[in-house]
Amino acid sequence: MSKSGSKIGAALADALGADRVAEDDATLQAHRLDYWFLAHLRAFQGRGGAGPVCVVKPRSTEEVATAVRLAQRHGVAIVPYGGGSGVLGGAVPPDDAIVIDLRAMAELLALDETALLARVQAGMMGDVYEQTIGGRGYTTGHYPQSIARATIGGLVATRSAGQFSTKYGNIEDLCLGLEVVLPSGNVVRLAPHPRSATGPSLRELFLGSEGTLGIVTEATLKIFPLPERRELASFAFPSMAAGLDAIRRIVRPGWRPAVVRLYDRHETTRHFGDQAPAETCLLLVVCEGPSALVEAEMAACAAVADAMKAIAAGAGPVHHWLERRNTVPSWDFFLDNGLVVDTIEVAATWDRVAALYDAVVASLGGMPGILAASAHSSHSYAQGTNLYITFAVKPDDFADAEARYLEAWGRVMEATLAGGGTIAHHHGVGRLRVPWLERELGSAYPVLQAVKRALDPAGIMNPGTLLR
Amino acid sequence: MSKSGSKIGAALADALGADRVAEDDATLQAHRLDYWFLAHLRAFQGRGGAGPVCVVKPRSTEEVATAVRLAQRHGVAIVPYGGGSGVLGGAVPPDDAIVIDLRAMAELLALDETALLARVQAGMMGDVYEQTIGGRGYTTGHYPQSIARATIGGLVATRSAGQFSTKYGNIEDLCLGLEVVLPSGNVVRLAPHPRSATGPSLRELFLGSEGTLGIVTEATLKIFPLPERRELASFAFPSMAAGLDAIRRIVRPGWRPAVVRLYDRHETTRHFGDQAPAETCLLLVVCEGPSALVEAEMAACAAVADAMKAIAAGAGPVHHWLERRNTVPSWDFFLDNGLVVDTIEVAATWDRVAALYDAVVASLGGMPGILAASAHSSHSYAQGTNLYITFAVKPDDFADAEARYLEAWGRVMEATLAGGGTIAHHHGVGRLRVPWLERELGSAYPVLQAVKRALDPAGIMNPGTLLR
Repeated sequence: MSKSGSKIGAALADALGADRVAEDDATLQAHRLDYWFLAHLRAFQGRGGAGPVCVVKPRSTEEVATAVRLAQRHGVAIVPYGGGSGVLGGAVPPDDAIVIDLRAMAELLALDETALLARVQAGMMGDVYEQTIGGRGYTTGHYPQSIARATIGGLVATRSAGQFSTKYGNIEDLCLGLEVVLPSGNVVRLAPHPRSATGPSLRELFLGSEGTLGIVTEATLKIFPLPERRELASFAFPSMAAGLDAIRRIVRPGWRPAVVRLYDRHETTRHFGDQAPAETCLLLVVCEGPSALVEAEMAACAAVADAMKAIAAGAGPVHHWLERRNTVPSWDFFLDNGLVVDTIEVAATWDRVAALYDAVVASLGGMPGILAASAHSSHSYAQGTNLYITFAVKPDDFADAEARYLEAWGRVMEATLAGGGTIAHHHGVGRLRVPWLERELGSAYPVLQAVKRALDPAGIMNPGTLLR
Repeated sequence: MSKSGSKIGAALADALGADRVAEDDATLQAHRLDYWFLAHLRAFQGRGGAGPVCVVKPRSTEEVATAVRLAQRHGVAIVPYGGGSGVLGGAVPPDDAIVIDLRAMAELLALDETALLARVQAGMMGDVYEQTIGGRGYTTGHYPQSIARATIGGLVATRSAGQFSTKYGNIEDLCLGLEVVLPSGNVVRLAPHPRSATGPSLRELFLGSEGTLGIVTEATLKIFPLPERRELASFAFPSMAAGLDAIRRIVRPGWRPAVVRLYDRHETTRHFGDQAPAETCLLLVVCEGPSALVEAEMAACAAVADAMKAIAAGAGPVHHWLERRNTVPSWDFFLDNGLVVDTIEVAATWDRVAALYDAVVASLGGMPGILAASAHSSHSYAQGTNLYITFAVKPDDFADAEARYLEAWGRVMEATLAGGGTIAHHHGVGRLRVPWLERELGSAYPVLQAVKRALDPAGIMNPGTLLR
């Protein structure tokens, strides 16, 4: 496994100091994977990648820039690495790549309580950031399930969405300023403004770029005063279609509860078996903010549920969810039991999403060896919502595990493209979704390629992720 | 003036039909200017441009694409033209350019009442669009002052903001889908999704691109059910700083009134002389939406005003503003009277905006011949607000009018850059702001240049606008 003594490793150690460059087996091993099921499956089957050539651990933007320039000069690929919580292989390094691990750059650089902005280094973990500003009376408003495993840079680079996004917005709504090291090694600083009409949004080029157009080293994010009040409620609906329609009716006139989260029958039974009426789809609602807003908003949600004859199921299921919401499963448990599992998030407009739910669950249900095919909706908008799909397959022969995994993904991606949805709601593209991204973008794909070529002509930035 | 018989005109007429190409003096004359004061000043002084070579009036996206391909082949510059309401020269054609006038493409193509989306051709006028969907029970939520003079394509291409943006969002929040003809003539379609994590937002590349990266031919925009209720109020504050702080306190916990609009003393006297207490800064508030939300939101606004000892001035001034808000001045009146006038919109975060207001007004006030230097704030965010500045100068010698105009602009732009603001809130860049855009973007400017070169290597798309 060891690749110590590599030319690029020596050059990096020379330029940055030996303490910034690791070539030991343990460090290389720790950067061989992210949280992609397929990478773990391959490793489990002894087919894993060899890991990076070396791992750079910069302590400043200038050090990142130096590392990028050196890699450029040596023609070596770079994979930026944060918390390693990506689930699509976007941080799984090719064998000949170096990894730049941002986690030593983890400072809160500024907190502006008047402008409600925080400037934070890319390597800070999501939960540490939330706790740090929480102690000052603020919240990030951004709580992805991966909050304790993801860095701010990773959340920016993958277009993350938090569990309370219906109220607070997604990362593109929250991130107003960026610092990025370009593939050239030049450092770009995009200043945070409340709003600007100064041409195309260059910020939006780097949001979701997954290390292919540069390395995010700093972000300036909106913060929010801790809400005055929070109210919880849940309602049981007879079908997914009815529950989706309830969400649509809630958001349609402009209400934006922090959470409106609908589980299908399978997941309602799985997660809330004893708390919801049998054979129902459970809708969780969290309203928070100024008391008068919370009161009006919760009343509006209850009125929609009532008009649709949903069964009120109280705050209990929401408490239950709030306690368990950041649990991340260990792939080892599933692999040890011969199971192929994953989650897939897609989205569609309200006119299409109920049919897409049916199509996805039916298509997965037709797979040999399928044990579970279910979904919930967790992020809603006036125009539509996402579906967060879970599948579990037990192949007859575990040697077919990868084929079964790709088949399940293929079924969901095809159903989504056929149903007019988008193939990714908030996990990004990584390596896994590359072929379907090209199909979703269609006529727009060459624009993305042109931008990539313009900024990274040598193609050294995270090759194989996002673009083929 | 006539350039009839031009090679490109003949080629276009040949490809598209003679009825799609105009080379007559009246048409060329009608496309010689947009609504930029300086272009009108130059024309008034007999120094105006000669106008375009010809004007193409396509009736389909395919015809736009054909025209672009022909211009590309002939190496002729293209300026897309909508309502001609731009105030920075972005649609003033260079003498050797052709103009593509989109106004014959003005259909509402689809209205999805479930997904709350409308698909509209780029040439439809803003007010026609609002009236068309208004008849179906919806609103665009987008009412710029130019609504009756601007096309949808123009509003998208310049990153427009509407007067009710604090509630409904700006054009980048409203526009979910786009069709664009690239400089190559290829047509790109970006499908509308509620939200997507499929890499960089290519939509955000074209929003604000002002015809330099392609021609917007269609947009898919959010629509909103007409609000259940609307309430109006106004409050008088002793200073601009106090009024700005009131807005900050209103939006901080999450309230988003449709309108929170603050006039400085000069403009309060000018527009509301008999309706506001003397020597005050008037804040107009419009809340609209579901009744319970409007009630809670208006109470929150009144509570902030009350806590700050503002004087309640009733609904009268808001009615007054609502009636007059889309009046656009005629430059001729000012030119005939030897006056140099304009408006300039900038924005800054809450920690900076009061000082920026003072700096801008002071700097303009130091100009020889200055008659008026005032501002209001019309678009607010949790992070900050805009300043919409008005100036009027009477040069001793009207031969110096252009120099005085550029001096006034220079003073505001310099004060904004020095004060950490953004040089443009919602009018875009056009030709006028090009040098200051480069300074504002700084390290990011080469990224914009690289994108431009990647998509328009021959540089035929609206040269001189946005980028030098």
